[in-house]
Amino acid sequence: MTQYYLYGERRALPAGPSYEVYLDPATTAVVSIDMHDGHLSESPDCPCPAPRGRAIVKPLDAFNDAARAIGVRLVHVRSSLRPSGADDVGGIPSAWRLGFGEFVGGIPNVDQHAIEGTPWTRFSIRIAPGDEVVDSKKRLSAFYPTDLDFLLRQMGVATIVLTGVMTDCCILNTAFDASNRNYRVIVIRDLVAGTNEELEEAALKIMSLNTGLVMDAKDLLGAWRERQSGVAAA
Amino acid sequence: MTQYYLYGERRALPAGPSYEVYLDPATTAVVSIDMHDGHLSESPDCPCPAPRGRAIVKPLDAFNDAARAIGVRLVHVRSSLRPSGADDVGGIPSAWRLGFGEFVGGIPNVDQHAIEGTPWTRFSIRIAPGDEVVDSKKRLSAFYPTDLDFLLRQMGVATIVLTGVMTDCCILNTAFDASNRNYRVIVIRDLVAGTNEELEEAALKIMSLNTGLVMDAKDLLGAWRERQSGVAAA
Amino acid sequence: MTQYYLYGERRALPAGPSYEVYLDPATTAVVSIDMHDGHLSESPDCPCPAPRGRAIVKPLDAFNDAARAIGVRLVHVRSSLRPSGADDVGGIPSAWRLGFGEFVGGIPNVDQHAIEGTPWTRFSIRIAPGDEVVDSKKRLSAFYPTDLDFLLRQMGVATIVLTGVMTDCCILNTAFDASNRNYRVIVIRDLVAGTNEELEEAALKIMSLNTGLVMDAKDLLGAWRERQSGVAAA
Amino acid sequence: MTQYYLYGERRALPAGPSYEVYLDPATTAVVSIDMHDGHLSESPDCPCPAPRGRAIVKPLDAFNDAARAIGVRLVHVRSSLRPSGADDVGGIPSAWRLGFGEFVGGIPNVDQHAIEGTPWTRFSIRIAPGDEVVDSKKRLSAFYPTDLDFLLRQMGVATIVLTGVMTDCCILNTAFDASNRNYRVIVIRDLVAGTNEELEEAALKIMSLNTGLVMDAKDLLGAWRERQSGVAAA
Repeated sequence: MTQYYLYGERRALPAGPSYEVYLDPATTAVVSIDMHDGHLSESPDCPCPAPRGRAIVKPLDAFNDAARAIGVRLVHVRSSLRPSGADDVGGIPSAWRLGFGEFVGGIPNVDQHAIEGTPWTRFSIRIAPGDEVVDSKKRLSAFYPTDLDFLLRQMGVATIVLTGVMTDCCILNTAFDASNRNYRVIVIRDLVAGTNEELEEAALKIMSLNTGLVMDAKDLLGAWRERQSGVAAA
Repeated sequence: MTQYYLYGERRALPAGPSYEVYLDPATTAVVSIDMHDGHLSESPDCPCPAPRGRAIVKPLDAFNDAARAIGVRLVHVRSSLRPSGADDVGGIPSAWRLGFGEFVGGIPNVDQHAIEGTPWTRFSIRIAPGDEVVDSKKRLSAFYPTDLDFLLRQMGVATIVLTGVMTDCCILNTAFDASNRNYRVIVIRDLVAGTNEELEEAALKIMSLNTGLVMDAKDLLGAWRERQSGVAAA
Repeated sequence: MTQYYLYGERRALPAGPSYEVYLDPATTAVVSIDMHDGHLSESPDCPCPAPRGRAIVKPLDAFNDAARAIGVRLVHVRSSLRPSGADDVGGIPSAWRLGFGEFVGGIPNVDQHAIEGTPWTRFSIRIAPGDEVVDSKKRLSAFYPTDLDFLLRQMGVATIVLTGVMTDCCILNTAFDASNRNYRVIVIRDLVAGTNEELEEAALKIMSLNTGLVMDAKDLLGAWRERQSGVAAA
Repeated sequence: MTQYYLYGERRALPAGPSYEVYLDPATTAVVSIDMHDGHLSESPDCPCPAPRGRAIVKPLDAFNDAARAIGVRLVHVRSSLRPSGADDVGGIPSAWRLGFGEFVGGIPNVDQHAIEGTPWTRFSIRIAPGDEVVDSKKRLSAFYPTDLDFLLRQMGVATIVLTGVMTDCCILNTAFDASNRNYRVIVIRDLVAGTNEELEEAALKIMSLNTGLVMDAKDLLGAWRERQSGVAAA
């Protein structure tokens, strides 16, 4: 029986078409968010550290391989800011620079965050031939102002599976946006990471109530394999 | 000294232009979200109850009057779904119907939620002449697929102040969207209400880190009055 | 054999799946644009006269009935501006007020154009039960800032058929927008009307090259009926 | 006296604030569209030839230099399609491939059009340090699905000046989109090129009525210089 999380509680996914429609590997894309060295490097110069995300790099590479083997498509979204600064600090700066910056007591190299042409935009996870990349994320959402929605429509995607960083900002915002645009959304509980445990748990609860399903990686892979092989879910 | 909340802690707003730009009443609009009887009625038939929101109806009316007196503009956003069902249950249903419905154990009259022409779309707060209304909210965000962004641009608004329900879904999603679109965002801590205290607090923490300022109503009114009268903040 | 127009020349629609996909009645919606009294009334007070559009009111009613009989869905888009003026003359005014106004030598009652609550927003064509209405058109396109795209996605529409006024502005702009968003677009040559014959013909040529098919009403109805009845196109 | 074109007729720009607001160099950006080798190369392999555009390469370089000297900002928008084909021929293909392709009798190398990493995306005009580039144009409009609107907001741009190819598709569509989003739009009559003279003239007439001003390069430069030097227009 497929398991999911509702408000932090692990339980059996109810039967029925409303849930079944989330689990079709043929109409699904896995969308990873901001798994790049600008968040995940261990260097002291890392411009926008998301240290909790380092623990999901290897498991996400393994999950992505399993998804590819099943035939699920992959899209990787990455922040990229024009070197001129016009996208952010040279115009109306991102709000997180104020609030998050104040919270963590300042980030030394933050002005290098996501700048095109720096090493900080390198992917920390493996990108395979056949994967698609969306390179124009500028703010928290993977949808605005990128071409992700356009690309997903072209690919005939109905369900998106979110992985990456950070659970309580970019993942959460993207889950809201995807759900508003009528995509079915699954967030992989053990393949997202956030600011701290408190906000990770809260964001997962919020998403389980409002944007779709929260599941563990192994449970989703199991559900896909059952459907791929034509075996009905038990 | 103006006070705000960072990660739940009340503290003095730092000085400087990065914060000052949030507090100009002339370029600000107060945006209330979904303060309608479909969420706030005490009737057992209320199709999508947000009972914690009832406590903010009167304080929000008072705040809105104070804002009008200072010359701050108001916009009220309200959900409205076509009677045919095409916007929701007759097409790809909103994800909250699944997750939130399961969480609260089912909502008896939920199919009447926000249906145009029913009494459930009536505002529970007072709308004054000169206020603007946005009537095409269909999902969680006040921005998609409405004309709110278009209207705010036309009004020359740079800062939006969010009030209403629910803190952990529509307010949170709208704060993300507004911030991505480069509006400065203030959320009024004591004029928003959510699912429960746990998620209200978490959502306010998330917004204080990522989308702008979290403030109490009286502190924002005080800051506006100082700027309106030309007296510098102390 | 189905006929269409390429750069003003009537000719046989080539065979093949690239064209066939335009002609499936089951995934199509007819979208009428701005067939309201504010454009079509014969009153001297008509605030934004599109006199060439009056000739298509009856033929469009007949076409819409035929489409309904085949099972094709209908959506009617109509301009509607807030009485405050914030959407247009009270903010950044529409560009057509300058150019078109200068061209026709001024329009006496133009400030009443599309104002909510005036008689000028009444539909001049017949709206049937089961048709959908989009009421938040503010500028030339039927897509921005309305919820038309959202509604069409919910309805599972792949092809839209454009009718109404005016060929060389709102129809043309909507055809571009729909095509960019990956809808298949058909414009009904004899159910659209424009500024004058010169611009109508030019706009139809432009659309035939760039946004999809241009066809006559009877040819499209014929193509739909063949596919509805399961008879292959000859 | 500043001259412009209304419906093809050259005449004096009326005085008054409604027109004056178009001519402030400080809030303006020049936006060039698709001035790349994939349209403008003389090679027989050019994947999407716009031969009339070759004549504007040098004049546009000169105009852009003059604009830079006055302090007007520049943005260059360029099509770029993912090598996988997902953006176009591998998904729902662009409508122009059908209509325009049929019209010109087939384009030999069209599948290479705008493919990332090919020589066909190289700019044919000169890009200077300080200019901005928007690289994610996928369809006709420069606005959807790119980040042009986001970038222009960040830059504080109110007026955009359009140059490039093609007058009757990408320029026209972009003028509509910009105008709908409340930008003031100027199209430079002698720095745009289209399919043929007939459609160029028609598109300029349509834009002069609906989307803003049509002007010659020298007239706009003159108007900017008067305002830059503080001398009132005569």
